[in-house]
Amino acid sequence: MIVVMRFGSGDEEIAKVVERIEVAGLKAHLSQGAERVIIGVLGQTFPELRDMLETLPGVDEVIPVSKPYKLCSREFHPQDTIVQVGDIAIGGDEIVVMAGPCAVENEQQLLETARAVKAAGATILRGGAFKPSTSPYHFRGLGKQGLELLAQIKKETGLPIITEVMSLRDVDMVASYADIIQIGTRNMQNFSLLEEVGKAGKPVLLKRGISATVQEWLLAAEYILSQGNQQLMLCERGIRTFETYTRNTMDISAIPIIEKVSHLPIIADPSHGTGKWYLVPPLALAAIAAGADGLIIEVHPNPDSALKDGPQSLTFNNFDQLMSQLKPVAAAVGRRLATPPLKVKS
Amino acid sequence: MIVVMRFGSGDEEIAKVVERIEVAGLKAHLSQGAERVIIGVLGQTFPELRDMLETLPGVDEVIPVSKPYKLCSREFHPQDTIVQVGDIAIGGDEIVVMAGPCAVENEQQLLETARAVKAAGATILRGGAFKPSTSPYHFRGLGKQGLELLAQIKKETGLPIITEVMSLRDVDMVASYADIIQIGTRNMQNFSLLEEVGKAGKPVLLKRGISATVQEWLLAAEYILSQGNQQLMLCERGIRTFETYTRNTMDISAIPIIEKVSHLPIIADPSHGTGKWYLVPPLALAAIAAGADGLIIEVHPNPDSALKDGPQSLTFNNFDQLMSQLKPVAAAVGRRLATPPLKVKS
Amino acid sequence: MIVVMRFGSGDEEIAKVVERIEVAGLKAHLSQGAERVIIGVLGQTFPELRDMLETLPGVDEVIPVSKPYKLCSREFHPQDTIVQVGDIAIGGDEIVVMAGPCAVENEQQLLETARAVKAAGATILRGGAFKPSTSPYHFRGLGKQGLELLAQIKKETGLPIITEVMSLRDVDMVASYADIIQIGTRNMQNFSLLEEVGKAGKPVLLKRGISATVQEWLLAAEYILSQGNQQLMLCERGIRTFETYTRNTMDISAIPIIEKVSHLPIIADPSHGTGKWYLVPPLALAAIAAGADGLIIEVHPNPDSALKDGPQSLTFNNFDQLMSQLKPVAAAVGRRLATPPLKVKS
Amino acid sequence: MIVVMRFGSGDEEIAKVVERIEVAGLKAHLSQGAERVIIGVLGQTFPELRDMLETLPGVDEVIPVSKPYKLCSREFHPQDTIVQVGDIAIGGDEIVVMAGPCAVENEQQLLETARAVKAAGATILRGGAFKPSTSPYHFRGLGKQGLELLAQIKKETGLPIITEVMSLRDVDMVASYADIIQIGTRNMQNFSLLEEVGKAGKPVLLKRGISATVQEWLLAAEYILSQGNQQLMLCERGIRTFETYTRNTMDISAIPIIEKVSHLPIIADPSHGTGKWYLVPPLALAAIAAGADGLIIEVHPNPDSALKDGPQSLTFNNFDQLMSQLKPVAAAVGRRLATPPLKVKS
Repeated sequence: MIVVMRFGSGDEEIAKVVERIEVAGLKAHLSQGAERVIIGVLGQTFPELRDMLETLPGVDEVIPVSKPYKLCSREFHPQDTIVQVGDIAIGGDEIVVMAGPCAVENEQQLLETARAVKAAGATILRGGAFKPSTSPYHFRGLGKQGLELLAQIKKETGLPIITEVMSLRDVDMVASYADIIQIGTRNMQNFSLLEEVGKAGKPVLLKRGISATVQEWLLAAEYILSQGNQQLMLCERGIRTFETYTRNTMDISAIPIIEKVSHLPIIADPSHGTGKWYLVPPLALAAIAAGADGLIIEVHPNPDSALKDGPQSLTFNNFDQLMSQLKPVAAAVGRRLATPPLKVKS
Repeated sequence: MIVVMRFGSGDEEIAKVVERIEVAGLKAHLSQGAERVIIGVLGQTFPELRDMLETLPGVDEVIPVSKPYKLCSREFHPQDTIVQVGDIAIGGDEIVVMAGPCAVENEQQLLETARAVKAAGATILRGGAFKPSTSPYHFRGLGKQGLELLAQIKKETGLPIITEVMSLRDVDMVASYADIIQIGTRNMQNFSLLEEVGKAGKPVLLKRGISATVQEWLLAAEYILSQGNQQLMLCERGIRTFETYTRNTMDISAIPIIEKVSHLPIIADPSHGTGKWYLVPPLALAAIAAGADGLIIEVHPNPDSALKDGPQSLTFNNFDQLMSQLKPVAAAVGRRLATPPLKVKS
Repeated sequence: MIVVMRFGSGDEEIAKVVERIEVAGLKAHLSQGAERVIIGVLGQTFPELRDMLETLPGVDEVIPVSKPYKLCSREFHPQDTIVQVGDIAIGGDEIVVMAGPCAVENEQQLLETARAVKAAGATILRGGAFKPSTSPYHFRGLGKQGLELLAQIKKETGLPIITEVMSLRDVDMVASYADIIQIGTRNMQNFSLLEEVGKAGKPVLLKRGISATVQEWLLAAEYILSQGNQQLMLCERGIRTFETYTRNTMDISAIPIIEKVSHLPIIADPSHGTGKWYLVPPLALAAIAAGADGLIIEVHPNPDSALKDGPQSLTFNNFDQLMSQLKPVAAAVGRRLATPPLKVKS
Repeated sequence: MIVVMRFGSGDEEIAKVVERIEVAGLKAHLSQGAERVIIGVLGQTFPELRDMLETLPGVDEVIPVSKPYKLCSREFHPQDTIVQVGDIAIGGDEIVVMAGPCAVENEQQLLETARAVKAAGATILRGGAFKPSTSPYHFRGLGKQGLELLAQIKKETGLPIITEVMSLRDVDMVASYADIIQIGTRNMQNFSLLEEVGKAGKPVLLKRGISATVQEWLLAAEYILSQGNQQLMLCERGIRTFETYTRNTMDISAIPIIEKVSHLPIIADPSHGTGKWYLVPPLALAAIAAGADGLIIEVHPNPDSALKDGPQSLTFNNFDQLMSQLKPVAAAVGRRLATPPLKVKS
């Protein structure tokens, strides 16, 4: 931690800063710059110290130099984390595609979609039973019935399931059905939910908050990891900017950044990241070219009658075409698509 | 709802749009513009319809013309809502100042602060027992013990209490201590928490999400109102922009906007809105000048040893000075400060 | 300047950083922190050094501690700058209101408006002869004819004139008519225009760029000041955020920030800052309460037939009412409105 | 254009809207919705009309349905534009890589870099003679001498040249040296510069403004096209968001959006788009996967002694490696890299 004193700060002010650092059991290290005094804090600092020093008279700025996250950091855990979902390894050489409808609507919709995405090469089935909705008057998912449909279709197709949990109360129930628990963008800083999910004993996919910095996202991951759950992957799904053509602005640079600073796998969600189905394929290809470990994509038998997010859903045809385009791009960056389970598991 | 067809869209595409509108029990109304066909949807539309129409071939854009919120809208409820907290009326002529420490730390800190802010003219005591924290390694509040301290100090000073609830599990407990339940910025779209708080039978203060549009904020309010709780006020606390000098950018324009489109009282939080104590007084004055119904302000006996948010906390002196500055500004816009309860209530 | 080395950086890497600092004629000062080595750079640094050090292997971050601006900084120039426009002093005790149409349209429109705003208490007439327009197909101002109309109306009313210059080519011409030259938001980083205006010998009003940080804005001011022109004022006019209800988000906090870090007067433009006429009065009051030295406001005889920016223009009536509201708010913060020139000057 | 009336607007208000529409020589078309009246405007509207209608009493919103740009729109010009630079065709099957130093520093630096990027497969040489700089105290380019060096190195290597123009005054001079004139992000709305460049008779690359929407960017293109210059390409170079890890957030989705709505070629600049050299290769690959027609990349012999933008510059080695990675990704999306000119042209 470095304390930058204001231009013209006096000896008394400097002495007070040094005193507070020493009271905290740390050492102060003064440098006289051309215009200002700079005070290095030596020893193991603690987060509250920053605010305490920043408030002292004569202090211009306090700059932390340690990263605030540890468990998710590559500095402290250099090898890649592999998240294991049955036979599927996420975060290794293979690229994993999760696909399915935004919301589970009924058995037929889910079964048809599951078969179609599996045939096209998806290895994990996505589908929402609990759906966050900006308005209380919109469709909010089938709830428990949706989870049961997912379980049934999993049995029929062999595809593992990823589904979202939105409420503390539902964590155990969702964990008992899901192979991967998803935390949505609106809950990235729902800290009690993060901790509960960290204890649920299932792999977790943590979406980036709609206006979260990379650092805040990693700190949210830290909440889950610190509960002992290491089977965690991150998901870039677009951030909020001034642009109104797209629903969100997909931050493709977050993919190589996460790869650099963290050991956790990184998945891309071009469906929410763009909000328009015709932008999904180019952004899916871009994400893979930039190093993503997987994709999560919305597919619907009839996007124009979907109860949720039709405009960003691919038809079976469009999804099939995308999967064919993905293969050579994956190969071009030295990777390959994971293959779907050959037969139904029971 | 209006459907704008693409330039050059064909009769068949138009017919399909009309058909879908009629299947939904509504009427379609065609206009041939200079370049495009525009189709008005007549009748009571429903939210999913937009997505369904947007997905049809030949459709360029679907534009909703009804506002998606109802219960919080001034169109449907023209008179101002008054939130009643004991003798204090929020949303009327008087401006209500809520003040106190960011986090409850101990009895002495809370009591001293409560006495100081009351002496200066605050009428409601703020203090966090459950504190959201970006990092799992930071101070996160005293929990239940903090609530008990708040109750005790309320008894001694007569000041009603506002405090935050972060978890579904704590709603009943917090409601049993608090006079106003606060929903923090990170939970503005924690929909299960909103509904639970809507049932708790206590006045609620709903902070704007850090990157929420005014419309999303009003829809979050709608979640609470739709549970039957009309004692709701909104709180502008800064939004996230590219500017890094301040912690957030306080959107003062949200104050007159809320006043125009909604009947709910609007409170301003210049402490979080700026993140720097020396910006709190000018922004507090600005909020009142722009029409805010109240302020919520962080005050601490020793900001430089606060466990949370010291840099944005006012000292007793600074708060006292701010209160003196507020009076003439309130008068200048035809309002007055509410006065603190004269004696302790039991 | 402080160089933060990566966790685990080696002696060789550190030596290379030290070497480069010494080659630049400066001194390096090492501190061994708990996890990283930190190197202070002592002596008068230069801007390119940051990039050079950041590129060296083992370097995590380079943090500048001097402010990059000098001439506009309060540290180097503690007293307030007063911009003098005839008898009117901007930046002192009096609050100066500049008002008029967005664009000069014709003699009658300008004369009527000038008389109305003068009668209501405005002291400077605004009016655009050259208008920036997002689209090449929109009205772009009367050009030289507009300047001549402004000169004529100035003669008739005695009101000094502020008007925008958009092109290098027009600086001399605009300077020969205007009492204050305005640099618009889109030209805040048009560096050749800034320098030209810095040489023109007339007071300048520099609007903040639509997505400029406070620091970038001050550096743009530095371009003008460094040409020897000290008669400069800054103007907050709203920044671009995700919010779509308003045209821009007015950053009221920029007003006290500028007052703190710079000696230059700060003017607020609530017309562009909000884009909606009914938000102009509350934001104008807020700006004054927050410490602004003046306002610039769009007024039009018939906003619904204005060729430019009608929706954000006040009618004469609305402007008159705003001026009455401004007086007590100014008084409440210890200031008063400047009074219009009593008679016509020739 | 559609006029949405407020809930409860009266007949008189509606009549006034209709009257204004008819005065403008257009037809009004009323629909009575469930809650509001909606008025369609039929005929060829003009841009000022929107503001005029929006200002009328009883009007809630005016929604334009025509796109405000024409010449750059794919609706009006369905075939792809090919920009021809000598033998190189930009916007066709081949992907064109422009590379070189941020700023021209001296002959040796430029010659070495030109040879290295040509050997690696670049086909156009970039290099700034006039450099925009946020601070007046930073390096701002060699000016005319830089242009002469570019001309000399072009002669020696056969590589065509792209370089930026910043000032109206320099357009003719820059046009006499450059094969492609670049308009930088800060000048995207410098309208007089755009028109001047539109008349200069040379291909132009127009960078997106740092906070420009896609629509504003296309309207800026319209300024150039409307001067008769059809040899125009667009360049995505990152937008400003709240994220601070990167210098800008590269909006990869802008690539397929431009391809969909416009016929102009689209180039990606991952150097400015990220600001960090190690993010340049993954984002370059992503841009190509998403459909970009070319790349512009900063390369420097010694990034750690570059006078400008060292941290985002690739070394020769890194650039060479990137070019090898690009080939298979280009092939995977059905394209190939353009090849550098075989021999020197004179």
